[in-house]
Amino acid sequence: MSEVLEIGRRARQAAARLGTTSTKVKDEALAAIADALVDRTDQILVANAEDVQRGREEGLSSALLDRLTLTRERVAAIAQALRDLIGLKDPVGQVLDGWTLPNGLRIQKVRVPLGVVGIIYEARPNVTVDAAGLCLKSGNACILRGSRTAISSNIALATIIEDAGTAAGLPPDSVQLIRSTDRESAKELMRARDHVDVLIPRGGADLIRTVVEESMVPVIETGVGNCHVYVDARADLEKALPILINAKTQRPSVCNAAETLLVHRDVAEAFLPGAIGALKEHGVELRGDEGARAYDAGMTSATEDDWYAEYLDLILAVKVVDSLEDAIAHINTYGSNHTDAILTEDYSAARKFQLEVDSACVVVNASTRFADGGEFGFGAEIGISNQKLHARGPMALAEMTSYKYLVQGTGQVRA
Amino acid sequence: MSEVLEIGRRARQAAARLGTTSTKVKDEALAAIADALVDRTDQILVANAEDVQRGREEGLSSALLDRLTLTRERVAAIAQALRDLIGLKDPVGQVLDGWTLPNGLRIQKVRVPLGVVGIIYEARPNVTVDAAGLCLKSGNACILRGSRTAISSNIALATIIEDAGTAAGLPPDSVQLIRSTDRESAKELMRARDHVDVLIPRGGADLIRTVVEESMVPVIETGVGNCHVYVDARADLEKALPILINAKTQRPSVCNAAETLLVHRDVAEAFLPGAIGALKEHGVELRGDEGARAYDAGMTSATEDDWYAEYLDLILAVKVVDSLEDAIAHINTYGSNHTDAILTEDYSAARKFQLEVDSACVVVNASTRFADGGEFGFGAEIGISNQKLHARGPMALAEMTSYKYLVQGTGQVRA
Repeated sequence: MSEVLEIGRRARQAAARLGTTSTKVKDEALAAIADALVDRTDQILVANAEDVQRGREEGLSSALLDRLTLTRERVAAIAQALRDLIGLKDPVGQVLDGWTLPNGLRIQKVRVPLGVVGIIYEARPNVTVDAAGLCLKSGNACILRGSRTAISSNIALATIIEDAGTAAGLPPDSVQLIRSTDRESAKELMRARDHVDVLIPRGGADLIRTVVEESMVPVIETGVGNCHVYVDARADLEKALPILINAKTQRPSVCNAAETLLVHRDVAEAFLPGAIGALKEHGVELRGDEGARAYDAGMTSATEDDWYAEYLDLILAVKVVDSLEDAIAHINTYGSNHTDAILTEDYSAARKFQLEVDSACVVVNASTRFADGGEFGFGAEIGISNQKLHARGPMALAEMTSYKYLVQGTGQVRA
Repeated sequence: MSEVLEIGRRARQAAARLGTTSTKVKDEALAAIADALVDRTDQILVANAEDVQRGREEGLSSALLDRLTLTRERVAAIAQALRDLIGLKDPVGQVLDGWTLPNGLRIQKVRVPLGVVGIIYEARPNVTVDAAGLCLKSGNACILRGSRTAISSNIALATIIEDAGTAAGLPPDSVQLIRSTDRESAKELMRARDHVDVLIPRGGADLIRTVVEESMVPVIETGVGNCHVYVDARADLEKALPILINAKTQRPSVCNAAETLLVHRDVAEAFLPGAIGALKEHGVELRGDEGARAYDAGMTSATEDDWYAEYLDLILAVKVVDSLEDAIAHINTYGSNHTDAILTEDYSAARKFQLEVDSACVVVNASTRFADGGEFGFGAEIGISNQKLHARGPMALAEMTSYKYLVQGTGQVRA
């Protein structure tokens, strides 16, 4: 049996026990794992240094090397994120609904774990611990398949999680790392329908597309955010500028940062000159349509690709639109159904925008940067779903569950 | 552009309008379509006669011919099923949750349609109307891809739906039928991620497996039911026999019929001789393990395949188990995670069985045949989901929706 199938078989067994493990044991295990990560930081850093050294030799970019690198402080932060999960409500066992049929059958709809969750991810070793923690708290066994770049770090982290978790009473194999990092191991995981209930890819757009296209296991697509800020004809321009600046520049590398600014023609003259100046002061490069370039002759001309782009950088596409309807149509055509904001004082415009924009989060008069599990008050986040099936938008513990129907009878048969 | 992509493009446009179409218009359209189906029954029967004639010439089995055949009464029943949807609550717009953040942002989680739903199905022309009705009521545009066997009937039905629906105020292209029935059109639909939000295959196990394995569009797997009845050591045997007979024989061809009987060794002698006699009287063929065959030397010996089998026929696999734990392990190993029942008066056994059997519906002291959207009181059913992602067990209108987060601010930016 291959490594992946053997891991899958064990994960299924672990899931059967983990699904009925008490919240107390799961929380104690999270605390024990957090303590072990801190206690064994030296071991983690030695393993991580191997990955970083190899990465340097292989010419990884400085951004990738930064994501790969662990420090004492970063390990402490990773451990703290696990401890933060302890305070959150365990979703397993929550009764979502319940009723009694005319024949006396009692039906309850109760949250249960998904079962076995596979995570395919890239260079960040913190995902190893984050994902394991979220899976454990929600009662799911987890199979981690990280990249070769971080393999030494991941082995060190996964070993500590397994040791400390099992010692604290978790079923063995609750968290397993696939050690082969060749293409075949990922493919095998994507075909392992009998062993894996859902796959969540975490990483860049290429990784996610590959998993979505190749997986036979159900996938939750996360991560791509081409977010829009639309300044309506009746926007309060005093509010609009700080929101726009925040949405674009507060952290441009993340999926809920704004990538396109749409401005209604009626306020373009009042808003754009000041906005262009302020954006440039924040180091933002602008790419505009003709309407936008009328206010800045030096602005690069936007191409069709710019409207689709998720820059994840200090670049912003800018377009002047003739109407609210045009803004909505642009967003639904070019957007990624993630998060889009309208800035307006017009009740009907706000209502129409929220109804018709087909995105996970539709915001009125606030920054797109709030579309986040932490900001929403979920206390954790496994990712932001771009799809409509199962979960949409920020996903936390409840989104890591399914449900079952418990039917209690007294001898009923169907007529 | 191919037929499928053109249909997909139009469906996306229809979905954008249908998602905000009022319940009143949708209900009026359902009534108008039902009336039109009755008014134009002659046209439907003429088209259906072509399919039946071709099916006969091509040697379809009598069971398949029966599923294909429409009569005046069957058309009336199909129309009535549409009218029954009118009385059901529209799930779209339901506020699922809502809260206010410390910074004053108000968040609402609101049900929205999935968008575009693709249905790939086999010979039954009633699915054309059923699926269209469920999609319309839940605000989803729908793309139907039926089989060649029923193509004339499907074209007649889809034309009537489109004519009557559009006349009643639905967006054009809300329901579209793909007319090419070659393998390529199904493949194209399964790759049309930009145009289709979810695919639901309806039909036999082979069809469902193909769609699950090949689709890049998210799929909801439905339909396979290898259901178990477990007679526990402390079962009330007076109740157990009628439940078993009902679960196996009341309608053996459907997914919630029982396929395997497990009997605790302690009651095998008291229960099995009578049960075997009663099952045989109902025409049921039995295939048993050694423990079961001890009570009926003529019983066929069950093979490994029998434990996995979904017979959909008057056949039952029978096994004597040593413990509740063995029963649960057998079900979780060989079952299809659909519906399984324990018959017992033992509180702890019932509780353990409901917690540990990993199935969509886990029943105590009642027939497996109740696992059904109609019986559960949903008023409709698009299928019974075998997967944990998105929806599990009987799926009705609410399961045809996703949600979006509406965020209302007053100028908030992220710190």
